[in-house]
Amino acid sequence: MKYNIPADVDKNRVSQYKKNLKEATNGTNHLMLFAGDQKVEHLNNDFYGKDIPLEDNSPEHMFKIASSAKIGVFATQFGLISRYGRDYKNVPYLVKLNSKTNLIPYDKQDPYSQSWISVGDVVNFAKESGLDIKGVGYTLYLGGEHEHSMLSEAAKIVHEAHKNGLLAVLWIYPKGKFVKDEHDGHLIAGAAGVGAALGADFVKLKVPYDKEGKFDSKLLREATMAAGRTGMLCEGGAKIDEKVFLTELYAQIHKGGSRGNGTGRNIHQRPLKEAVKMANAIYAITSENATVKEALKLLK
Amino acid sequence: MKYNIPADVDKNRVSQYKKNLKEATNGTNHLMLFAGDQKVEHLNNDFYGKDIPLEDNSPEHMFKIASSAKIGVFATQFGLISRYGRDYKNVPYLVKLNSKTNLIPYDKQDPYSQSWISVGDVVNFAKESGLDIKGVGYTLYLGGEHEHSMLSEAAKIVHEAHKNGLLAVLWIYPKGKFVKDEHDGHLIAGAAGVGAALGADFVKLKVPYDKEGKFDSKLLREATMAAGRTGMLCEGGAKIDEKVFLTELYAQIHKGGSRGNGTGRNIHQRPLKEAVKMANAIYAITSENATVKEALKLLK
Amino acid sequence: MKYNIPADVDKNRVSQYKKNLKEATNGTNHLMLFAGDQKVEHLNNDFYGKDIPLEDNSPEHMFKIASSAKIGVFATQFGLISRYGRDYKNVPYLVKLNSKTNLIPYDKQDPYSQSWISVGDVVNFAKESGLDIKGVGYTLYLGGEHEHSMLSEAAKIVHEAHKNGLLAVLWIYPKGKFVKDEHDGHLIAGAAGVGAALGADFVKLKVPYDKEGKFDSKLLREATMAAGRTGMLCEGGAKIDEKVFLTELYAQIHKGGSRGNGTGRNIHQRPLKEAVKMANAIYAITSENATVKEALKLLK
Amino acid sequence: MKYNIPADVDKNRVSQYKKNLKEATNGTNHLMLFAGDQKVEHLNNDFYGKDIPLEDNSPEHMFKIASSAKIGVFATQFGLISRYGRDYKNVPYLVKLNSKTNLIPYDKQDPYSQSWISVGDVVNFAKESGLDIKGVGYTLYLGGEHEHSMLSEAAKIVHEAHKNGLLAVLWIYPKGKFVKDEHDGHLIAGAAGVGAALGADFVKLKVPYDKEGKFDSKLLREATMAAGRTGMLCEGGAKIDEKVFLTELYAQIHKGGSRGNGTGRNIHQRPLKEAVKMANAIYAITSENATVKEALKLLK
Amino acid sequence: MKYNIPADVDKNRVSQYKKNLKEATNGTNHLMLFAGDQKVEHLNNDFYGKDIPLEDNSPEHMFKIASSAKIGVFATQFGLISRYGRDYKNVPYLVKLNSKTNLIPYDKQDPYSQSWISVGDVVNFAKESGLDIKGVGYTLYLGGEHEHSMLSEAAKIVHEAHKNGLLAVLWIYPKGKFVKDEHDGHLIAGAAGVGAALGADFVKLKVPYDKEGKFDSKLLREATMAAGRTGMLCEGGAKIDEKVFLTELYAQIHKGGSRGNGTGRNIHQRPLKEAVKMANAIYAITSENATVKEALKLLK
Repeated sequence: MKYNIPADVDKNRVSQYKKNLKEATNGTNHLMLFAGDQKVEHLNNDFYGKDIPLEDNSPEHMFKIASSAKIGVFATQFGLISRYGRDYKNVPYLVKLNSKTNLIPYDKQDPYSQSWISVGDVVNFAKESGLDIKGVGYTLYLGGEHEHSMLSEAAKIVHEAHKNGLLAVLWIYPKGKFVKDEHDGHLIAGAAGVGAALGADFVKLKVPYDKEGKFDSKLLREATMAAGRTGMLCEGGAKIDEKVFLTELYAQIHKGGSRGNGTGRNIHQRPLKEAVKMANAIYAITSENATVKEALKLLK
Repeated sequence: MKYNIPADVDKNRVSQYKKNLKEATNGTNHLMLFAGDQKVEHLNNDFYGKDIPLEDNSPEHMFKIASSAKIGVFATQFGLISRYGRDYKNVPYLVKLNSKTNLIPYDKQDPYSQSWISVGDVVNFAKESGLDIKGVGYTLYLGGEHEHSMLSEAAKIVHEAHKNGLLAVLWIYPKGKFVKDEHDGHLIAGAAGVGAALGADFVKLKVPYDKEGKFDSKLLREATMAAGRTGMLCEGGAKIDEKVFLTELYAQIHKGGSRGNGTGRNIHQRPLKEAVKMANAIYAITSENATVKEALKLLK
Repeated sequence: MKYNIPADVDKNRVSQYKKNLKEATNGTNHLMLFAGDQKVEHLNNDFYGKDIPLEDNSPEHMFKIASSAKIGVFATQFGLISRYGRDYKNVPYLVKLNSKTNLIPYDKQDPYSQSWISVGDVVNFAKESGLDIKGVGYTLYLGGEHEHSMLSEAAKIVHEAHKNGLLAVLWIYPKGKFVKDEHDGHLIAGAAGVGAALGADFVKLKVPYDKEGKFDSKLLREATMAAGRTGMLCEGGAKIDEKVFLTELYAQIHKGGSRGNGTGRNIHQRPLKEAVKMANAIYAITSENATVKEALKLLK
Repeated sequence: MKYNIPADVDKNRVSQYKKNLKEATNGTNHLMLFAGDQKVEHLNNDFYGKDIPLEDNSPEHMFKIASSAKIGVFATQFGLISRYGRDYKNVPYLVKLNSKTNLIPYDKQDPYSQSWISVGDVVNFAKESGLDIKGVGYTLYLGGEHEHSMLSEAAKIVHEAHKNGLLAVLWIYPKGKFVKDEHDGHLIAGAAGVGAALGADFVKLKVPYDKEGKFDSKLLREATMAAGRTGMLCEGGAKIDEKVFLTELYAQIHKGGSRGNGTGRNIHQRPLKEAVKMANAIYAITSENATVKEALKLLK
Repeated sequence: MKYNIPADVDKNRVSQYKKNLKEATNGTNHLMLFAGDQKVEHLNNDFYGKDIPLEDNSPEHMFKIASSAKIGVFATQFGLISRYGRDYKNVPYLVKLNSKTNLIPYDKQDPYSQSWISVGDVVNFAKESGLDIKGVGYTLYLGGEHEHSMLSEAAKIVHEAHKNGLLAVLWIYPKGKFVKDEHDGHLIAGAAGVGAALGADFVKLKVPYDKEGKFDSKLLREATMAAGRTGMLCEGGAKIDEKVFLTELYAQIHKGGSRGNGTGRNIHQRPLKEAVKMANAIYAITSENATVKEALKLLK
């Protein structure tokens, strides 16, 4: 497979970048991202409550899944990686550089989230700790009073990551009082284009809905094309039925042109064994070119 | 005892980090933190008034207690340490890096508190002065317009502390108009998870109350589990009856899973001798595995 | 042709600056700037929809045009250049350093756009990648609460560009509630003077309209004279009829004294072949001293 | 006399710090601070008008006083010191690092004042110019939206000053809509504690009043005790009768426990000769242990 | 003539500072400043319109005047100097470091203007280009929410200028809703004192008016005395009759104690030849000790 190496990857880091991309995507250029940044983004809502197994309340649950399942990368905050990484050395990590809580509704205050540590810190940490850190992630919100800061920080992060041979994944969400419908396909295509202009390797976006609020893979094509060489990852969202999830995932990739997914709750809100199977099924479709049928078999 | 050494502790600082953790917790991994940052946080309210002995009005009172009693660490501002430290060299210090006053009600302006000096300043100071500085502390408020700045600063402080072999303790309080109940157990568990994501060694939190406003150690378990490898410290709060205090403290640790406490007023708002005894009793339960009965004996 | 070399161009970079200016303007001092920063500025509105060919939805469309047509410079964001640059090495690039989305109406929030990466980053990138980067671009909005930041950043960018032998192009737009008419000739002349005071090589401005809302090349002369040695580029705007466009362009230069144009939609909202022809026609008038008639022939 | 040397004074600067403290307090640890920063703080109100001698309108008036009288330190802005210092080399200076004007009422906008130059600038200046600079000063306002910035800047300034062997004096004023009574003794004690937590050598505060608005030295004791090893300086305020002033000053020190005063208008709003005498009288009580009677003789 | 050399001028730059001051003031310590920063401050209003000769619309007009007339310094933005400086090498320049537009009324938004480039940039530029740069200028507005930033930036600029042997001129204007009358003499004296506290060499201020709105040189004395060793320059204002202008200028200096003027429109809003004569007349009174009569002769 031929990879698109961004021109801002340092010459001495091209092979490392290639290795990171190849390993994270199983050589398919499609990324299964196990999203584990919700302990800040959603506080404890995703980890404790009705229909959530008690073990999910411990941060270690996600590390166990990430360590036992096939995944592309496990995206979580630096602090958790520094606390658990030594015991889960086989996990491919993506350091989520920023996060915010959900305490303030989006319509009450324009969301803002700054990077917690720098790409340079991550690079040093990877070298010192020997952990397998494949990239960094950053969330930016378009449409609010802090857009300028987040666009600027995102661009620098992507560039720094590339210079150091790391992958850069952006979470991009238009938000605020001037955004009528977050699932509008044209708007999502706009966000995809912003990710491309920022030079991201992958951009995690909402999934477009039709007028009835249903996913339609055709609507997705505007965004995946607008993203150009930046791969679009579809957001996993709240936990739903496995078959529905996997069928939609298959359509996103094979009909909609997405290049992967970012899934959290649909994986970790299960007992460890089930969670590992679900992760493997998602990985099979995303990065092993499996059919839905083949993937469903993995759940058995 | 086996300690969890964060992977971001510099290789050359691992033994120092271990020593700090071991000494601060008496080898139990449970921390008794003597909280002495209220001269800014509460101005003079905690130190002068009805039922407070006059000697508490002098900052030196706390240093005398910290020097004579068994404690894990004495947490206070850098300026006080620089003024009194030479005369109280046996005290294990934790430099509280930020503080704000209580002049503005939380519902009138989102609280914001920046670090006063850097971790690097503290490291240099410890080396120059020879004082026994075991770590740094930082308060962050979730849910306001400054959340992004404080999350970012907290993450950097934890990382810098670890790189230098120091402990990092975070005080985390959800505040502001979108926080209905600061003593809600699910919310506190969310804050605990934020502390874990930030990589803190310990996180000082409010104590969860049930619907009648009473402490229930079972409610605490959601938070202590969500905190993962980050130890939760229960806030000491306003001065109450000794027996009630110690009984609750025991329950927090042994039933609720907390890994210590941060206590100020319940210690220093007493004449020196009594304050030292109370500190010793708290320490006994927290870091010497004493029963309530054993601890109460120390008050005699 | 004698060029005006700004006195802040580093002595060792004078020949590079001259080369950049000469090549970008085909030795005419008139610049045809192919504007391709709309993926952020207008999200996906300019690239997908009724009357827009589907191929325009891919960012690569613009690179194909820029590579096949005669242009002065292709102005787009760094991330896109880093993604496509290796495959389009013959393109003369101008890195647009900042961009904002159109989600918030100008009258609801004063527009603000910060540079994404520094001029130094661009200089290093050009050296490392071997791409032909001729300059940098920056948009600033006058009249809002962020004017001071953008003026300051613009001035530094122009100076840094010059020190490094690069061209500096500013997009200057008065905006906000105190701007009654963005097409007022006197106001545009003021913006031109700001560009001159900032030392820009070229300044891209709105085109002045008369009271009937029509372009009048005489009105343009106030601005082009006020710009002094800074060349004024006329904004291309929404796609219109080719002949009308080219006739107006000719008048802007030959009657109005403009020194070029910045055109995006009138080029890229066409199938590749047509787009290339249109770009060539614009280039012919701007930088090859062609008549409208000669230019129109190129569209055949 | 044994001095309290803060532990953050650099080892190589301890003797310099001691010398500065000793000379500034005449070996008494009590500081007479001649306050001359009002040209910014009060614009020209304190220097020109009814009952003010014309000579006070020239900045040089204060330098003449400072040079001819006995004083602890003369606190004024860097710019004035750089303009007049060469001609008044015998004056012990304290560089007031920040200042704001009085144009905006405190209840209309939370006050904010940043340092103008750094402690490092002052240190270099002292070395280069040979002037006798004994310390630096900084004003901070508690209770407003900028409290966090000023607390942080103040802490850094105190620490930098100490590292360089300089004294650090803080002016601390609770202000804003949540401060009901600036002369409330408990509030002033709170501000004193903040000064102590910041590690200041001296803290200049308002004087507490009783319910009738009169000074009562007993009320002062809460604050001077809360200040700990940080010396409290009482604000001089508007010009009043000499005998009343000196009697109150004596009571502040000998009954209230203050360690000096910061006096401006009561000195400089007099013809030179009288001003010098008044300064000498204040100095006698503050730093020469004189009685009121002895001090009054100096006014003859 | 003996000059007051600020103590913060670097030892190795004293002779350069002296040379700059001497040449700029023709050895009189009185400065004729030709103000040419209005292309930003007033956009194109001062350069194009009824009663303004067309040639004034080109920025080069001011350079021609500055080059042909006797002036102290020509104050304009860096960008214009970098564009025209090579062709007007005999001009003594003062780089105006900041500027803002007039698009927003002062009562709608507190004015704010940041420096565009640093003093260090100017110093390097002067060395590289060989241009005769005698100093830097900066405008600050007192009384608004940005006062703290501008005071701080102004102080640093003055200090940096002095360290490098350059003159520092401040434009100081109290503005905003709490400023009732910008021409009040007492207020202007306050601004003069702020300039002195900032250590400026010269401070450009509004001219005080009496109750009838007329200039009265006696009112000026409060300000010129309050400015101390900082020379007060009177603002030139809108174009008026030559004789009236020169008579008032003479009175400002000889009766009011001002040390010069900052004049723009009264010079450049004339055809080149007349403009040069007017500049020479102003220079004669300011820096050649001419009478009004002598100066008027120069206009013939």
